[in-house]
Amino acid sequence: MKIFSDTQFSDLALGLLEHEIEALGHELIFPHELQTSVLAQGADDPSFTDAEIAFGQPDEKSVLTNDNLEWVHLTSAGYTRYDTPKFRAAAKARGLILTNSSSVYAEACAEHVFAFMLAQCRQLPWALSSRVASGTEEWLELRNAAPLLRDQQVLILGYGAIATRLAAMLKPFGNTVVALRRHPRGDEVVKTIALDQLDSALAKADHVVNILPENEGSRGFFSAARFAAMKEGAVFYNIGRGATVDQDALAAALGSGDLAAAWLDVTTPEPLPDDHPLRGLANCYITPHTAGGQRAESEALVVHFLGNLRKFTAGEELVDRVM
Amino acid sequence: MKIFSDTQFSDLALGLLEHEIEALGHELIFPHELQTSVLAQGADDPSFTDAEIAFGQPDEKSVLTNDNLEWVHLTSAGYTRYDTPKFRAAAKARGLILTNSSSVYAEACAEHVFAFMLAQCRQLPWALSSRVASGTEEWLELRNAAPLLRDQQVLILGYGAIATRLAAMLKPFGNTVVALRRHPRGDEVVKTIALDQLDSALAKADHVVNILPENEGSRGFFSAARFAAMKEGAVFYNIGRGATVDQDALAAALGSGDLAAAWLDVTTPEPLPDDHPLRGLANCYITPHTAGGQRAESEALVVHFLGNLRKFTAGEELVDRVM
Repeated sequence: MKIFSDTQFSDLALGLLEHEIEALGHELIFPHELQTSVLAQGADDPSFTDAEIAFGQPDEKSVLTNDNLEWVHLTSAGYTRYDTPKFRAAAKARGLILTNSSSVYAEACAEHVFAFMLAQCRQLPWALSSRVASGTEEWLELRNAAPLLRDQQVLILGYGAIATRLAAMLKPFGNTVVALRRHPRGDEVVKTIALDQLDSALAKADHVVNILPENEGSRGFFSAARFAAMKEGAVFYNIGRGATVDQDALAAALGSGDLAAAWLDVTTPEPLPDDHPLRGLANCYITPHTAGGQRAESEALVVHFLGNLRKFTAGEELVDRVM
Repeated sequence: MKIFSDTQFSDLALGLLEHEIEALGHELIFPHELQTSVLAQGADDPSFTDAEIAFGQPDEKSVLTNDNLEWVHLTSAGYTRYDTPKFRAAAKARGLILTNSSSVYAEACAEHVFAFMLAQCRQLPWALSSRVASGTEEWLELRNAAPLLRDQQVLILGYGAIATRLAAMLKPFGNTVVALRRHPRGDEVVKTIALDQLDSALAKADHVVNILPENEGSRGFFSAARFAAMKEGAVFYNIGRGATVDQDALAAALGSGDLAAAWLDVTTPEPLPDDHPLRGLANCYITPHTAGGQRAESEALVVHFLGNLRKFTAGEELVDRVM
């Protein structure tokens, strides 16, 4: 089969991909320009028209006009560009399969937000910049500002691979963990609620972790009303997509002290301009969309794709299938 | 019984202490000056001579000259001042009991060093100060600098309440965790080694966590030779006592890049002067001895002491007994 790949991988990962594709008797096709970020949209490329499988971030319009295409495997976990009624209908009509790389990012993302939570509990930004002597007023304040994570309640919005890993990481702490899922199925590893119970869950949680994907239903999900429903002094985390948050409402809740802090790996836009209100808040901590990153990320993406490729050619169910 | 208490507790904790002591029919004695830090040594105080029980940080010479004294309960986990052959012999001869508050600090300390480890893995100091756009070289570097904690090996020096909790917290990550204990007993929750296996363990560990207490045998334990035995690129953590580390050797190992980073909650002295070599290293992160701190710390210390007081009067074995 002809496999289109538009991602700029490491030499090691590319070598692995080329070696395995050749060994399996397939052919790799590359566009003129490779993407260095899995968050970027690939350009329409003439070489794409022959592709039967696409691995990367192919242009969604080209996907729909390429009748040879049977399967698209995204290098990202997010698939906002494809998550439209029009694309879904067209994919379904032609039997086009869409998979993503959420398994690759789940561990790193869960570790990242867990690092945020522990840094917040232990007051690391304050403690790392403080040189106070023991017994002083600031020292006592600093020690006293650190709640034990063990005693805290956690609410996770969006139940999937990341939430499952985060719940496992929280287990030794014995906290109450609750997850929100559009349609709870009963097989979740933690107590799971639907949207109609969200407000009462927001009122109880010390830590609110937003992992919602971006789609038409989730844009602006964290509105002023949702922030107002949160417990006073709660902490908000976002490792999903920036567009699910009303950033003006978040800035207001942080500025008033209703929220103790926010830790964001995603914003709108990225990077957030230096003069954005969130940049001026001492209790807003931002990392530049690196939650999913990991040493040997390229290799992990290729290994994940190759695993799915073997399943695809064997007619088995693919991992991380979203359509 | 007459109970001497020299710690400046919160009003809530003090009220609880006074209420319970009165209810149990005992009497509280306070010195002229209270200690605001559990790390400070209490002064010799005339009121102390009547005490049968001491709760706090009593002067160790006064302890040995007070024949009425049956039990000392320290508000700290550390007990360096009392941990001398002379004090041990005198305490043994008179049947004096010494307990500490290590149960109170174990959770906070374990959460603190775990926060350090995750902050290091996720490169939080760098990521929080970076405003790079996705796809840029620095962005790829930053993502690639984050090893998954899941894939890392951890060595813990000093097996006790903190190590046990840290091992439990690491369990969902599936890492290889090894602990060093002076005399392994075989009942440890992780693989435990003695000193003769330390060098080979240091050569394998990605994260070396120092929780050693300070005593004559542990001073300067982390010498130039021990840092040289560590794996290149390893990370060193200290939440025990500063004196167990040769800080010049540590600064050299950090400066040469042999160690990737150090995260210290304890130093010699505390706070470390602004012109100390460790302060000038970008890969040395220091918090001001706040690892054991927690919201409601005073209350937790009092509750822990009262639990032991009930056991003491009932003739039961005390918790956290060290002599």
